[in-house]
Amino acid sequence: MGEEMSNKQIILKDYVKGSPKESDMILKTSTVELKVPDGCDGAVLVKNLYLSCDPFVVVRMMKMEDSYFDSYTPGQVIMGYGVAKILDSSNPDFKKGDLIWGITGFELYSLIKSTQSLFKITCTDVPLSFYTGILGMTGMTAYAGFYEICCPKKGESVFVSAALGAVGQLAGQFAKLFGCYVVGSAGTQDKVDLLKTKFGFDDAFNYKEEADLNAALKRYFPDGIDIYFDNVGGKMLEAALPNMRAHGRIAANGMISQYLLEEEEKIGNLLCLVKKQIRMEAFIVFDYYHLYPKYLEMVLPLIKQEKLVYVEDIVEGIEAAPAAVVGLFSGRNVGKQVVLVAPT
Amino acid sequence: MGEEMSNKQIILKDYVKGSPKESDMILKTSTVELKVPDGCDGAVLVKNLYLSCDPFVVVRMMKMEDSYFDSYTPGQVIMGYGVAKILDSSNPDFKKGDLIWGITGFELYSLIKSTQSLFKITCTDVPLSFYTGILGMTGMTAYAGFYEICCPKKGESVFVSAALGAVGQLAGQFAKLFGCYVVGSAGTQDKVDLLKTKFGFDDAFNYKEEADLNAALKRYFPDGIDIYFDNVGGKMLEAALPNMRAHGRIAANGMISQYLLEEEEKIGNLLCLVKKQIRMEAFIVFDYYHLYPKYLEMVLPLIKQEKLVYVEDIVEGIEAAPAAVVGLFSGRNVGKQVVLVAPT
Repeated sequence: MGEEMSNKQIILKDYVKGSPKESDMILKTSTVELKVPDGCDGAVLVKNLYLSCDPFVVVRMMKMEDSYFDSYTPGQVIMGYGVAKILDSSNPDFKKGDLIWGITGFELYSLIKSTQSLFKITCTDVPLSFYTGILGMTGMTAYAGFYEICCPKKGESVFVSAALGAVGQLAGQFAKLFGCYVVGSAGTQDKVDLLKTKFGFDDAFNYKEEADLNAALKRYFPDGIDIYFDNVGGKMLEAALPNMRAHGRIAANGMISQYLLEEEEKIGNLLCLVKKQIRMEAFIVFDYYHLYPKYLEMVLPLIKQEKLVYVEDIVEGIEAAPAAVVGLFSGRNVGKQVVLVAPT
Repeated sequence: MGEEMSNKQIILKDYVKGSPKESDMILKTSTVELKVPDGCDGAVLVKNLYLSCDPFVVVRMMKMEDSYFDSYTPGQVIMGYGVAKILDSSNPDFKKGDLIWGITGFELYSLIKSTQSLFKITCTDVPLSFYTGILGMTGMTAYAGFYEICCPKKGESVFVSAALGAVGQLAGQFAKLFGCYVVGSAGTQDKVDLLKTKFGFDDAFNYKEEADLNAALKRYFPDGIDIYFDNVGGKMLEAALPNMRAHGRIAANGMISQYLLEEEEKIGNLLCLVKKQIRMEAFIVFDYYHLYPKYLEMVLPLIKQEKLVYVEDIVEGIEAAPAAVVGLFSGRNVGKQVVLVAPT
């Protein structure tokens, strides 16, 4: 028999409709035995240290068809990326004491049966929380999106929407380090200032203060956009299309402006694709995880040499998770939203 | 002094607004000296044999901004692809008697200064008119679109819209020969029958008789579409998006449903791009002309072995060109629309 512990869990109460609310989730306390149960060969039992608040966590709370993510079932623990410590393992690849990042539960302790999505953490002279973001899924998304999908060339003009979001801030910095001209959009003046002063973007603007997004983009990109790293979709995508240069590339990383709408907005200007021979490509980070070692090789030195700015918004305690997750959609967080569950 | 000849020319009267009409063009008779004028080094003087009616010819008659094609100026001769014979040359690459295909004028005789867009015709044991289509720009478009943009795999499901159009019929047949399952859409029952009986499509449907295009595509592709070769854009693109399979590819070859609209239709379902990691890519055939010799190597044997069906709709006389061009947009033609100007 393993030790029995109280386990606090964030449970989906019912499918989210409209804007997500904290009350869509409930905190439940149950007990957990800190041991992989018999018959769960290959599983690990972990103590969660940090949890990552990502838009897809909310998307999975909605009853969606045709998504790459299955919806959670009401009554189920919310799942998402996290950093955790192995307490017990029936898997030869992981042993007690190992640190991992990957898909876990929004709870104090999780039994993880799908260990193929776990990555062992070997470099620990950086904050562990970074593995919820810059050194985890978020970082890999920015990396794959910018380098693999956008196929950048030095000197090209890059537009990043939701540029202070977890992925956007990294995509923009990768583009700057690569030698591109980079402009970002965000939803508050504070974020715009941060982009320009702290994150080294060449320019930035508050999309909420622009009556005409098309005109705004023309102002920031008089010669057009080569690469649009799109995190928002909708009206911003519609405005970006006529501003693209010939042979432009659009990485459709996400469409956060659309996820919560009852009906998706229709957009115009698609004819620009044909007129300008544009490639618009969506991707899922899972398809690029084989590049993770290569990514670490690039990004770890950049972090240590302080050539990348990385901002986290860390709230404490599993109880704070629902508000943190919900806040993603109101633009509440500044930087990567993380929940500190336990320091070790 | 060269011989002076009467030259019949199709001239743009005024910019096309709304649907193109024959009366947007006028037939003008002038005289031409059958000799490259002094000071036109590198130019050739040709006798036009066949002219190709392509949608872009009409697009160039409209006052469009931001297009890859410059608009014609009213009073200017209509330009387009054609097959022609060199009558005089000041260009070392071409000599009197050579047959070429490329951009020429809609007139009996043309002085061509931009010879870099001309291809010499070396294989003449096929109908010369084929160089306006299957052996010219149209064929190269289908080839580059299908092989280079769609990256097909054997056994994949392919949907082709405007499938009896000049490009569509070839793209569909290339897909069949490659080992794909191919369904096409067209706008009359006759065209649908032709696709199924003559062109070897696995299935075909009349989009004008489908109240719900999304449902129609679900019926023909219960397991989804891997490749959509899009010639029409608009509502068909909107319907195709939710029917795409994960990692699907859309070759945005043209959007003929949109060219004549005062304001482009907005379309929904773009979120499907993100949900299914779809790549939607537009292209211009000019970027692939370096593959022309490779294409000829593939397509000439297929033509000679009668493994490709190729249907032309040939009208006679330069006077017939305006109606032929205009007819493209009402779906009048069956197969590639060609104007026979002179037999040799």
